[in-house]
Amino acid sequence: MHIDLNADMGESFGMYVLGDDEEFMKYITSANIACGFHASDPSVMKNTVDFAVTNNVKIGAHPGLPDLQGFGRREMKMSPQEIYDMVIYQVGALNGFCQAAGVSLHHVKPHGSLYGMAHKNTEVAQAICQAVRDFDQKLFLYIMKAGVIAEIAQEMNIKTVYEIFSDLNYDPEGNLVITRSHDAHDPETVSQRVLRMIRENKVLATDGSELHIEGNSVCVHGDTPKAVDIVKHLRSTLTAEKYDIQAP
Amino acid sequence: MHIDLNADMGESFGMYVLGDDEEFMKYITSANIACGFHASDPSVMKNTVDFAVTNNVKIGAHPGLPDLQGFGRREMKMSPQEIYDMVIYQVGALNGFCQAAGVSLHHVKPHGSLYGMAHKNTEVAQAICQAVRDFDQKLFLYIMKAGVIAEIAQEMNIKTVYEIFSDLNYDPEGNLVITRSHDAHDPETVSQRVLRMIRENKVLATDGSELHIEGNSVCVHGDTPKAVDIVKHLRSTLTAEKYDIQAP
Amino acid sequence: MHIDLNADMGESFGMYVLGDDEEFMKYITSANIACGFHASDPSVMKNTVDFAVTNNVKIGAHPGLPDLQGFGRREMKMSPQEIYDMVIYQVGALNGFCQAAGVSLHHVKPHGSLYGMAHKNTEVAQAICQAVRDFDQKLFLYIMKAGVIAEIAQEMNIKTVYEIFSDLNYDPEGNLVITRSHDAHDPETVSQRVLRMIRENKVLATDGSELHIEGNSVCVHGDTPKAVDIVKHLRSTLTAEKYDIQAP
Amino acid sequence: MHIDLNADMGESFGMYVLGDDEEFMKYITSANIACGFHASDPSVMKNTVDFAVTNNVKIGAHPGLPDLQGFGRREMKMSPQEIYDMVIYQVGALNGFCQAAGVSLHHVKPHGSLYGMAHKNTEVAQAICQAVRDFDQKLFLYIMKAGVIAEIAQEMNIKTVYEIFSDLNYDPEGNLVITRSHDAHDPETVSQRVLRMIRENKVLATDGSELHIEGNSVCVHGDTPKAVDIVKHLRSTLTAEKYDIQAP
Repeated sequence: MHIDLNADMGESFGMYVLGDDEEFMKYITSANIACGFHASDPSVMKNTVDFAVTNNVKIGAHPGLPDLQGFGRREMKMSPQEIYDMVIYQVGALNGFCQAAGVSLHHVKPHGSLYGMAHKNTEVAQAICQAVRDFDQKLFLYIMKAGVIAEIAQEMNIKTVYEIFSDLNYDPEGNLVITRSHDAHDPETVSQRVLRMIRENKVLATDGSELHIEGNSVCVHGDTPKAVDIVKHLRSTLTAEKYDIQAP
Repeated sequence: MHIDLNADMGESFGMYVLGDDEEFMKYITSANIACGFHASDPSVMKNTVDFAVTNNVKIGAHPGLPDLQGFGRREMKMSPQEIYDMVIYQVGALNGFCQAAGVSLHHVKPHGSLYGMAHKNTEVAQAICQAVRDFDQKLFLYIMKAGVIAEIAQEMNIKTVYEIFSDLNYDPEGNLVITRSHDAHDPETVSQRVLRMIRENKVLATDGSELHIEGNSVCVHGDTPKAVDIVKHLRSTLTAEKYDIQAP
Repeated sequence: MHIDLNADMGESFGMYVLGDDEEFMKYITSANIACGFHASDPSVMKNTVDFAVTNNVKIGAHPGLPDLQGFGRREMKMSPQEIYDMVIYQVGALNGFCQAAGVSLHHVKPHGSLYGMAHKNTEVAQAICQAVRDFDQKLFLYIMKAGVIAEIAQEMNIKTVYEIFSDLNYDPEGNLVITRSHDAHDPETVSQRVLRMIRENKVLATDGSELHIEGNSVCVHGDTPKAVDIVKHLRSTLTAEKYDIQAP
Repeated sequence: MHIDLNADMGESFGMYVLGDDEEFMKYITSANIACGFHASDPSVMKNTVDFAVTNNVKIGAHPGLPDLQGFGRREMKMSPQEIYDMVIYQVGALNGFCQAAGVSLHHVKPHGSLYGMAHKNTEVAQAICQAVRDFDQKLFLYIMKAGVIAEIAQEMNIKTVYEIFSDLNYDPEGNLVITRSHDAHDPETVSQRVLRMIRENKVLATDGSELHIEGNSVCVHGDTPKAVDIVKHLRSTLTAEKYDIQAP
């Protein structure tokens, strides 16, 4: 069985550095690269695409809400058309760097509150799916197998990749609990949690209840403390269990 | 002989409207569409691309300096790499809307101070040319047949279109005189000035001296008073003189 | 009886002009001046303060959400602390121009979605009131005599001015109906509507029902078609009816 | 003799953290706090003012060019009026937090390229001095005793504080060498360098030549490696030499 390791990359901005993307990129198989709206700028995007190409990592666009200060984590009431336009813009911008580097864009994964809204709000989900399809029907869309966007993507024949989160908590309804800064985690604990999600399709929610969960792309974060240790441990654990670590 | 009529389009932003692009688009053959850095936003870009498609107008990216307040008209000292990255980003973003609309991007024309710097500064010119070539070798680059970028573009085998300005003044060295707001012009005067530039390769500079000038794309502005009257008059004048009005 | 005529002023941005503030300022008694978050920039603010000073118009800060593209009309989920900080920042910035001009800041009026949220959401209302009080207890707060902020302002002993809207519609619950662009209005109709609001405390809601309404500051908009005609007519109508037109 | 230790503070932005201001604030006597144009946001400003108040550190506004991506280090051609307006805006915004906290604004120190331009360009220097004087004649202006702004400030009777740089290099003309990231430094070396600048008014320029230098405020940077070690060492060295460490 194939397992993809995806991570949000390229979230530095100007002078401000977030994570060690050059190092982290060695351990993942697909990168969701910020597009300048919630984080990043053209030069960070260029460098991040280069890191991905060097490490043979698949490149995805990671569009977010237009809110650098809030890191795309403050919900905004935008019209479906505004969301469609904003996604096309950001995906196009990142694709510019791919095209200049001679590689193909592989997927789109909405960021932060846009990701959250896409799983709850039909109009937002439709706008995102339409944008992905209009831009390039070959693109994968990275989402959770939950919420409205999973249904809409299926109806619209979008190629989807379902992801599970190694280092974020789920509430009892299966929603992600986004925190301002990611907690520290123990590598072994993370690896065992992921293994259980993959093999048994189970994870504990914040209230201790058992959630059913499915996906063959594991999202890992690069800006947590010990992020590199965690991803190395996870990758070697999965490899030892005979999973084939590669992007869809 | 073919004559192209190009105009800067899509320079509205949010609530703020600049020019009547929907109407103006009927009279031009190629549009330089702002990309969100000196003007515009994703929704304005989407609408402007739609107007161009409807009117069969060729679409160009019009990248500018990252300065909405200054409309890209305040010089900024950016490194060549920053300029390259910024051009790739903006061209990619606009290309996103073209790709979603099923049309090809046709050209790139730098905006405002970036355009001015490109004609004076070798490093800026090289960065822009490299970005255009890396993004897509089939793209045209719209510039003046003057200054360093004309030489560099030729050395780098960039496909160039030389443009002349119907409604901006030239200083005695052949540089454009960019003003905060464009003056009103008389349609007949503009048309005769353009005819003289095309037929005799001559135009009067601001000091009354005669400049040699070459180009088969005429830049017209849509945000001047009487802009629509002027472009209609110019187009019918050129047509009456048997010029074939079409994009390269 | 005193009647104040207030208007949102200084909502231009860079090259983009909205309304004829220099002219409109002649007919109002207090100006709510945008602070660079939903509209405006430092140079527009400087000019607008100068217009107000010239016309002896009282100056208020008009803080909005940090969203130039959306003109502060797209709700954003910000924490109460973020709202407090954002209001202090904007009020302080505008006060800078007042201080440099040797005049006092007179009031604060939240803009757009921030205004709407302040009337519906307790935490938002508290954050705004706290910011106004911490900045300067002598400031007036312009709000509607409705919603949670009216109660909270009273509890916190904020000096309030209740306003009524000459040219915006109310829904049956008394909420303002904010539209993307303001409709054209007939001056006589507006004046009679305002007179009825002042004398009888009544206005028709969008569903035709009668609303009770109170306030002695009338908000007029400067960016509507015929805005100057309307405010001149309104001012002369109120004067003819022996109302004293002046700011609180 | 009094020696002031000043530092640029509050240069974080949203999620992005730069330096440990809470800790660093314990060792300095005056803080130049970023105002949201080259760095910072309203919430960072609020927190930084609070740190300063807690530590009894004098608060200065640190206005910069409107360029978050470039951290205010890319020169921009702005008109003197635009610079004046931009300084008033930023000083006013920071003053908002001082006023809400019940403390007085103490000084203004231009940031990055604005600081550099102020020492070379007469119009820029005049615009800044005029803004400081118009805002509040009691404010100090922190500059180098070099370049045009030192002369203009004197002519305009601005209260000036001359500063010397503990951890930046000077070129042979006495200009600061601004680097993208500050180098690591040895605490003892820094302290001895500062002592020599204070006692002998001498420092080595980048070419090894001796520069004459004057000032009784020492600028220390909080975002260098070992920044806290350096400032602690410097402070105890100066104290041991019987200098009185306090703000003007």
